[in-house]
Order: sequence, then structure tokens, then C-alpha cells
Amino acid sequence: MGAVFSEKYSNIKASFTLEVSRIIYSKKSKFQKIEIFESPFFGKVLVIDDCIMLTEKDEFIYHEMIAHVALYIHPHPSRVLIIGGGDGGTLREVLKHSDVQQVVLVDIDRLVSEVCLKYFPKISSSLLSDKVRCHFQDGVDYVRHSTEKFDLIIIDSTDPINVGEGLFTQQFYQDCHRILTEDGILINQAESPVYAEKWLQNIARKLGSVFNRVFFYQAHIPTYPSGYWLFGYASKTYHPLKDFRNEKYEKQNLPLKYYNADLHKAAFVLPNFVRNLIHDR
Amino acid sequence: MGAVFSEKYSNIKASFTLEVSRIIYSKKSKFQKIEIFESPFFGKVLVIDDCIMLTEKDEFIYHEMIAHVALYIHPHPSRVLIIGGGDGGTLREVLKHSDVQQVVLVDIDRLVSEVCLKYFPKISSSLLSDKVRCHFQDGVDYVRHSTEKFDLIIIDSTDPINVGEGLFTQQFYQDCHRILTEDGILINQAESPVYAEKWLQNIARKLGSVFNRVFFYQAHIPTYPSGYWLFGYASKTYHPLKDFRNEKYEKQNLPLKYYNADLHKAAFVLPNFVRNLIHDR
Repeated sequence: MGAVFSEKYSNIKASFTLEVSRIIYSKKSKFQKIEIFESPFFGKVLVIDDCIMLTEKDEFIYHEMIAHVALYIHPHPSRVLIIGGGDGGTLREVLKHSDVQQVVLVDIDRLVSEVCLKYFPKISSSLLSDKVRCHFQDGVDYVRHSTEKFDLIIIDSTDPINVGEGLFTQQFYQDCHRILTEDGILINQAESPVYAEKWLQNIARKLGSVFNRVFFYQAHIPTYPSGYWLFGYASKTYHPLKDFRNEKYEKQNLPLKYYNADLHKAAFVLPNFVRNLIHDR
Repeated sequence: MGAVFSEKYSNIKASFTLEVSRIIYSKKSKFQKIEIFESPFFGKVLVIDDCIMLTEKDEFIYHEMIAHVALYIHPHPSRVLIIGGGDGGTLREVLKHSDVQQVVLVDIDRLVSEVCLKYFPKISSSLLSDKVRCHFQDGVDYVRHSTEKFDLIIIDSTDPINVGEGLFTQQFYQDCHRILTEDGILINQAESPVYAEKWLQNIARKLGSVFNRVFFYQAHIPTYPSGYWLFGYASKTYHPLKDFRNEKYEKQNLPLKYYNADLHKAAFVLPNFVRNLIHDR
């Protein structure tokens, strides 16, 4: 190989390396280091603080799975709050649902959105939609002080270190709970159950202390550590399987590349070792 | 890092690197290069021809999923043939089923079994069971000339290159079909749907030309390329979901770490892009 990018999985003493065919962008913002390069197989790759955030090849998996599951459960997901997700990928999927009237996106780092609008227009262009209001500020502060109400909050964050840390506390989940409507749903990215057991257990414990109903569902995300990623589902009311809205799914018939109605249910079926991790929290 | 092992994912111009805390074994057999090292997180790692075959940390996933799915479908899996699998991991899982009376294991390379008996006794010790007959010869030749009959054939092979190539041909699948009983099942490892699309489509096409019923199911295997692995299921008679034997599952109540009854069904639910790959074969 010539030039390469390596993501270090420090806690497991391993790394994942991609050949770099072209370096496109590299800058330190006030909050984090943002890099974009091109890889022969994965296309353009967005890297923040040395971790792969998305690649053109497989971003559809993460973004479909963080968005559509809750949107096919909640019966009237009119107002959606996205915390993080400045790249616009989650937003793109959310806006495929015509029952979503308004989305507030709160990302701490304006530069991520600016850079993505320039280099990943297919991912980010929804940031410019009339239905969207972007706030570039700390999500923790926004949720703490907001007097609005949301049907769905999606926490599309980095790992629970550095900038992302505050988005994984019990206090933050309580604040989310407060600004959710009475039948609101919270979704968050919940890390790898193989390489980040402690982070997952921490999320499970804290979500469980705030919400009535907490579940986890999974997806195969090749460019995230272990390729095995979980999402947290926390709800005041709805059960993720019993309240799945098949009629909406059938009627919309969205051309998705990963998510489907059967997979909605299958994604909640966890292997024994993951069930045990979550129960032993 | 100090000493490292890197598996090159050549076709996607990437690699996966593990820190090596100790080199345990390295030798070229007549057929392939066999290496064992210790990694801080994954424990001992078996490498054949520069590809990770198994690690102590996550081998349970592959071995449970290649074995138990068919064994909870077939109503009387008395005689089982394993092609490859000289490490004994698949065999260990197969022998957890008391309705299995006899297993024939055919691996081309005796040295793999010898080395695993020495360094991975928890994985390989079933090789010494009274119920097992080992043949160290080419699986293609064995199946071509065998006059025995089997209820289940498990093809636990390396990739469809070098030693493993002959285990992915239509002729080989036809020979397997011939030595399966009238209600027999064939399972094979079917590669990554993300990094090895062509291999998967090839398997799907050839299995589909020989067997009435062909399905694929999935597992999260962190140390295999992309972390996302498929298994082929080919049957003369049984449907993998309709013929699932829940009563046997409940009665046996095996202490497994990955497989469970719900996951049996969920594993067959594939994302849209994988469905399309298989249908477009």
C-alpha cells in the first residue's frame, strides 16, 4: 500500500487500515479534527478525531437503521430532534417520512455540516430543507434549556469521550425525557457489544433508570469497530415490535438498501452474550 | 504497537491488524501456512495462509452458527459429515446434540488438527470422541467417491481460493447432494456479503442449481472481513423456519453464547442489499 489511514482500536490493541487514494480535507475545528479522504473501495471517508464516521460505501446502513426503526413505530412522528448528526445522513432518512413536519438538528460543530455540504452533497443536502432548523451548539445545553416538545429524539453522536461524553449521562437522558411528548421515543447509537462492553452497559443502565421501556437493536456496519453495532431504543409508551406500523411501511414502500419490515423485528433479536451484557448491567 | 499481525483484505485495499503478545507456532504444511499467536484481547489466534481462522474470544459465534441452525431443523440428524473444520470447533458444537450418532470429519491437512489439539484443546478435543471418524484427505475426493449417506453435511472451509477452491463448485455440490439422505441438509460458510459479493453470488447460483431450497443466514463475526458473515443453507426437504424444532431446542436447553431460538429465525432475515445480491445471482 501507499498512503494509508489507520483507525486504532486502542482498547483491544488492534487497528483497521484503509488505503488512501486521495486526501481531500484536513482541519482542526474548535472542537475536533475533521478529515476526509478517498479510499478505492469505500469512496469518500469522513474521519473525526481519528475515527471513521462514515464512508460513501456503507453509510446507508447506519443512517437507515438509526432513523427508520422509530419512524415506523411512532404513530405521528411530527417533530424530530437530532442531536449530533451534522453530516446530514440521519436527517436525509428522517425526511423520507412525510409525516415528519419539522426537524431540529443540534450539532456542536458547524464545520462538520459545512464540510459535508461541500464534499458529501448526497448525504448532507437535507440540511438545507425548509423543514429543518439547525442549531450549532452543545446538544447537552440545548436539551437542558429547551421548552419545545418532540415526538422523537435521535442521538447520533460520537463515542462517549471528548465532545460526545455529555450525551451519555443520566442527566442528559432525563432532560431528553422531559422534552419528549408523552408517547415519545429516544434512539441513540450504543456502540459495539464486542469491543465496548462497558460503554454499552453504561448506556443500558442509565437509559433504564429514566425510561419505562428500553431495548437494543443491531446492525452490521463494516467500517465501525467489530462491524457489529447497537442502537438503544427508549420509549415512554410504544413497544418496538408490537407497535410496528406495517401498514405505513407497506404504503410508503421506500426504496431502502438495508432496512425492511422483517429486519425491523429481527434487528431486536440479540445473541445470548449481548442479552447477558445488557441484563447484567 | 510492538509486534503485529495484519490480515490484508486485498480486494478492498484494507487490512485488519492485531497486536501480537506472543508468537506460538509457525509452520508450512504440505498444503498451507499455519500460524498461531497470542493477542491481548482475542487470546490465541489461528491463522492459515495469512487469514484469521479463529480466535479464542469470538470463535463461539462462527462455530455455533454453522452447526446449530441445521441441527435444530433436521428431525433426526444421525450422521453428520464435516468437510474442513480440522480445528474441531464445528465438531464440538455438533456433538452437543445427542441425536447425532456419528460424525465423519474430512480435512485435507492433518497438521491443523494436530496443532489445534496441542494449542486449542477447548476447541479441538472433540476430535478424539468415539463418535468421530477423521479422514485427512481432500474433501472433494471424499465426497466424490463416498458410498455412505449423511443427514447433514457442513462445509467448514477456507475461502474459495487455493486449498478451498474445489469446495465451491457445482460438481462438488452435486456430489454432496448425492450422498445426502432424502431429507438431508447442506450448510456452508458463504463469505462476506460486503467484501466478497462475487463469491457469495457464485455460491448462491451454484447451490441453487443443485438444491430445491436454498437460503442464506447471517452472523456477526468480528474477526472475519467486514464482521458480517453469511452461511448457505441448502435442503432437499426442510424449510429453515417452518421446520425449526422448538421443542427440541427447549428440551435440550444448551448453554450457548450466541445462538438462540429467536435468533435462529432472525438470522435468515437479510438486509435489502444482501437479498438483492442473492436474487441477482
